[in-house]
Amino acid sequence: MLHELKTRLAEVDDLRSAASLLHWDQATYMPAQGASARGRQLATLSQLAHEKFTAPRLGELLDGLRSLESDPESDDAALIRVTRRQYEKAIRIPAEFEAKFSAHTAQIYEEWARARPANDFAAIRPLLEKSLDFSRELASFFPHEHIADPLIDFSDEGMKAQSVRALFSALRAQLVPLVEEVTARPPADDTFLRGHFAEEKQEEFANSIVRAIGYDFERGRMDTTHHPFMTKFSLGDVRITTRARENDPTELIFGALHEAGHALYEQGIARNLEATPLASGTSSGVHESQSRLWENLVGRSKPFWEHFYPDLQRTFPEQLGEVSLEAFVAGINRVSRSLVRTDADELTYNLHVMIRFDLELEMLEGNLLVADLPEAWRARYQSDLGLASETDANGVLQDVHWFSGTIGGAFQGYTIGNILSAQFFAAAEREIGDLESQIRRGQFEELREWLTRHIYRHGSKFTADEIVRRATGEELSTAPYLAYLRGKFAA
Amino acid sequence: MLHELKTRLAEVDDLRSAASLLHWDQATYMPAQGASARGRQLATLSQLAHEKFTAPRLGELLDGLRSLESDPESDDAALIRVTRRQYEKAIRIPAEFEAKFSAHTAQIYEEWARARPANDFAAIRPLLEKSLDFSRELASFFPHEHIADPLIDFSDEGMKAQSVRALFSALRAQLVPLVEEVTARPPADDTFLRGHFAEEKQEEFANSIVRAIGYDFERGRMDTTHHPFMTKFSLGDVRITTRARENDPTELIFGALHEAGHALYEQGIARNLEATPLASGTSSGVHESQSRLWENLVGRSKPFWEHFYPDLQRTFPEQLGEVSLEAFVAGINRVSRSLVRTDADELTYNLHVMIRFDLELEMLEGNLLVADLPEAWRARYQSDLGLASETDANGVLQDVHWFSGTIGGAFQGYTIGNILSAQFFAAAEREIGDLESQIRRGQFEELREWLTRHIYRHGSKFTADEIVRRATGEELSTAPYLAYLRGKFAA
Repeated sequence: MLHELKTRLAEVDDLRSAASLLHWDQATYMPAQGASARGRQLATLSQLAHEKFTAPRLGELLDGLRSLESDPESDDAALIRVTRRQYEKAIRIPAEFEAKFSAHTAQIYEEWARARPANDFAAIRPLLEKSLDFSRELASFFPHEHIADPLIDFSDEGMKAQSVRALFSALRAQLVPLVEEVTARPPADDTFLRGHFAEEKQEEFANSIVRAIGYDFERGRMDTTHHPFMTKFSLGDVRITTRARENDPTELIFGALHEAGHALYEQGIARNLEATPLASGTSSGVHESQSRLWENLVGRSKPFWEHFYPDLQRTFPEQLGEVSLEAFVAGINRVSRSLVRTDADELTYNLHVMIRFDLELEMLEGNLLVADLPEAWRARYQSDLGLASETDANGVLQDVHWFSGTIGGAFQGYTIGNILSAQFFAAAEREIGDLESQIRRGQFEELREWLTRHIYRHGSKFTADEIVRRATGEELSTAPYLAYLRGKFAA
Repeated sequence: MLHELKTRLAEVDDLRSAASLLHWDQATYMPAQGASARGRQLATLSQLAHEKFTAPRLGELLDGLRSLESDPESDDAALIRVTRRQYEKAIRIPAEFEAKFSAHTAQIYEEWARARPANDFAAIRPLLEKSLDFSRELASFFPHEHIADPLIDFSDEGMKAQSVRALFSALRAQLVPLVEEVTARPPADDTFLRGHFAEEKQEEFANSIVRAIGYDFERGRMDTTHHPFMTKFSLGDVRITTRARENDPTELIFGALHEAGHALYEQGIARNLEATPLASGTSSGVHESQSRLWENLVGRSKPFWEHFYPDLQRTFPEQLGEVSLEAFVAGINRVSRSLVRTDADELTYNLHVMIRFDLELEMLEGNLLVADLPEAWRARYQSDLGLASETDANGVLQDVHWFSGTIGGAFQGYTIGNILSAQFFAAAEREIGDLESQIRRGQFEELREWLTRHIYRHGSKFTADEIVRRATGEELSTAPYLAYLRGKFAA
C-alpha cells in the first residue's frame, strides 16, 4: 500500500512540477503570443493534479496506512501524516469552487496588471469584493475560530489569526520606538549606489556570490524575470530568477541572495524524499527565514563585505573605488520610511507587512469594506510610517497578493520569516562559535551544513513549530530578532 | 457532442504541449542533475495523454458524430475524420506494450549515447535486437501487407513499403548517374568557409534571415541545442533551436533556415484549428518538404544570396570580403560523397536515406540479422557511395533514429520531403511567375502566402496525397525534383 501511495504521489508531483516549469517558462522565455494557450495548459495540469490528489483511493490508502503514522522519526510515517493533512484539506474544497475561483483569479490578475499603472482602484473594486467573498467562502469549508485561520494555515500550518496578532503586536511594540530612534538620526549616504552599473558585470558578480554561499548550478540556474522568484521541478532542478537595475546594483545582489536562500533550502532536502509532499520547505515562514537569513543576516553584514567588497570594487572601480567598506555597508543598510514594501529597508519592512495583515483581517471579519480600503491604507501608513501615498498605485494596489489569490494568508510569512531568520542564525552561532569570522573569510559551509542538518534536509517532515524547537531548543521568539535589529541599527 | 469532443481533445493537447515544453527545456536550459526526474515527468505526461486520448468515451463521441464526417471541406468534418483515424490507431496499442516499449526506448537511447562515441556496436546489439522485436510487435497490432507498412503509416499516412520502394527506385535510377556525372568533375572550393566566424555574429545574421523569410518572433524564439529541432506548444508559440560551429557558418545558416521552414508551416496553421489534432503538419514528408524548400530551394539558391551575400560579407569582411558571390554559391553547394548523412550535400543526401530505408525493411522482413547490420551497412555504402566507414560510430551508429524509437518509419520522410519540396516550389513558381526575381529582392511574402494558402493553413485537415493534389494539381512525382537537381548540378 505504501508503494501504491508513493506511486500516486509521484504522479501528482510530476503534474505539479510540469505546471511549475510552464510558469517558469512564461516568466522567462515564452514569446508574447504564447500566453493564452499557456493559461489553458496550466489550468489543465492543476486540475488534473487536484483530481489525482483528491482521488478516493488515496484516502483509502491513507486510512489503511494509519497504523504506521505514529513513529515521530520515520520518513514514511511523516509522509503518511503530512499527506493525510494535505489530503483532508484538499477534499474539503469542492471542484466547482476551485474552477470558479481560479477563473476569477486569472481575471482579477489581468485587470490588476492594467489598473495598477493606471492608478484605477475603482475599476478593480468589484473584482476585489468578489475575491473577499471567495476568500471567506474558502475559509468556511474548514472549522475555524477566526475566519482567517484556515487561510493562514495553508501557508503557515499551525498559526492562527490570534497567535499571529499576539506575535506581531509584541514585535510592533518594540519595533516602533526603534524605528523612531533610528530615523531621528540623519540617514546614511547611499548616493554612490545610484550610478551606472553595467548589467552584465552585475550578473557575473551576483553569480559568484550565490555560488560562494553554496547554490549548486549543477542543480539549478539563474535567469532574468520581471518579478524574481525561486521554483523547483525536482530536487535536482531548483531555479532562481532575478532582476537587475542599471542604476542600483543592490536590486540584483540582494535579490539573488534572497532567492538563493530559498533555493538552498530546497536543494538541501534529503534526496529520498523526492517526488513526495515532503520534498519542499515546511511553511511560508520557515522558507522566508532562509531567504532573509542569507539576504540580510549574512548578506548585509559587515563580515560578508569584508570578504566580497574588494571583488565588487574591482568589478566597479569607477563607481566604488573611492567608497570605503564602512560607507558601503552603511549605504546598503540605510533606514528610511518609504511607501513601497519591496523597496523597504530591513527595519521598517515589517511595519509594511503588519499593516497588510491587519487590514486583511479586518476585511475578512467584515469590519472594513473593500470600498473603504484605500482610505484605511492611507490612514495606517500615516499613523505607522508617518507618510501616505497620494496614489493607490503606490498604495493599496502595490502588491500582487490580493489580486492573484485569497485575501488573507499570504503576508504573515514575511514577518514570521524575519523573526525566525534571527532565531536560527543565533542558534547556529551558538553552536558554530566563530561563525562571524568564517563569514569574514568567505566560508559558508559550516553554516549551510548546520541549516541543512536542522532544517533543509527534513523538507516538510516536521512542522514549523517542530523545526524551530529541534533547531533552536526554544519556542518561536522575537527576542533574537529584536536583539539583532538593536545591535545592528541602534548602535 | 462536438463541444465535448473538442474539450477532451484540448485536454490531450495541453498534456502533449506540456510534454513538448519539458523536452525543449531538457534540450536547452535544464541543469545536468534535472535529467532523472525529467524522464519520469515526461513518462507521466505521455501516459496521461495516451489514457485521455484512448478513453472509451472518445470513441462513443466519434461514433455519435459519424454523420458529420463526410463533408470534404468542413473543418469539423475533418476533425472528426482525422481524430477517428488517430483514435483507431491508438486503441490498437495495448497500454502494457506502450509502457514496456517506452522503458526500452529510454534504455537504448542512454546506451547509444555511450556506445556511439565508444564505437561499441557489440554492447548495444542485444538492445537493438529487442528494438526490432518491439517494432515487429507494434506493426503486428495493425492489418498490413508488408510488416513495415504500419510503421511508415504513423509518419506518412497512406504510404506503404511497396509504394515508397517504387518511388525510391525510380529516383535512384536517375540519381546515381547524376551523382556519377557531378562527382567526376573537381569539387567546388569551399575552404573559405573553414575560417573563424564569431558565433555571436553568426547568430545575428541567422536571426535576420529567418526573420526575413517570415518566421514570427512574437510567436516563437530561437535557442541553442546540440541537436537542432522545431517544437510547438501552441500556434502562438512555435520555437526553433539551432547549433553554431565557429569554423563553419553554414551549419547555423542552413540549420536555422531548415528549422524555420518547419516553423513557418506550424505558424501558418489556421488559428481556429488550435488545440485539436488538426493543428499540426499533416505528415513527415510534407513537413520535411517545407524545411527543405526554405533551406535548399530558397536558401541555397543564387538569387537568395544575391540579396543576402552583401550582408554576410559585411558581417565577416575578413573571411568573405574577397570571395565572390559565384564562388560562395558554388561553395555552399559543393557535392562530395561522404559517410555521414547529416553532413551530406543536397545531391547525395537521398542515397544515405535510401540505404537506411532498405536496411530497415530487410531487418523487419527477417532477411537481415541485427548482428549482420554493420557489415551490410558498409557493403551498401561501398556500392552506393563508393566509400565505407571503418568505424560503426560513423556507420550504423551515426543516426539516433533506430536507437530512440522503432526500426522503420522514420527515414522515408526525408526523401519524400525532398521530392515534394521541388514539386511544391515548381507549382508556386508557375502561379507566381516572377518568384526568382522576388527572391533576388529579398521578398518572400508571396511565396509564403502561396504555401500558407495551399499547405500551411490546413494543418492536418487533408492527407499528404490530398495536399499534393490540391496544391500542385498533380500526384506525387519525382520529375520536378530531378529537373531541379539537374538544372542546378548538371549545368
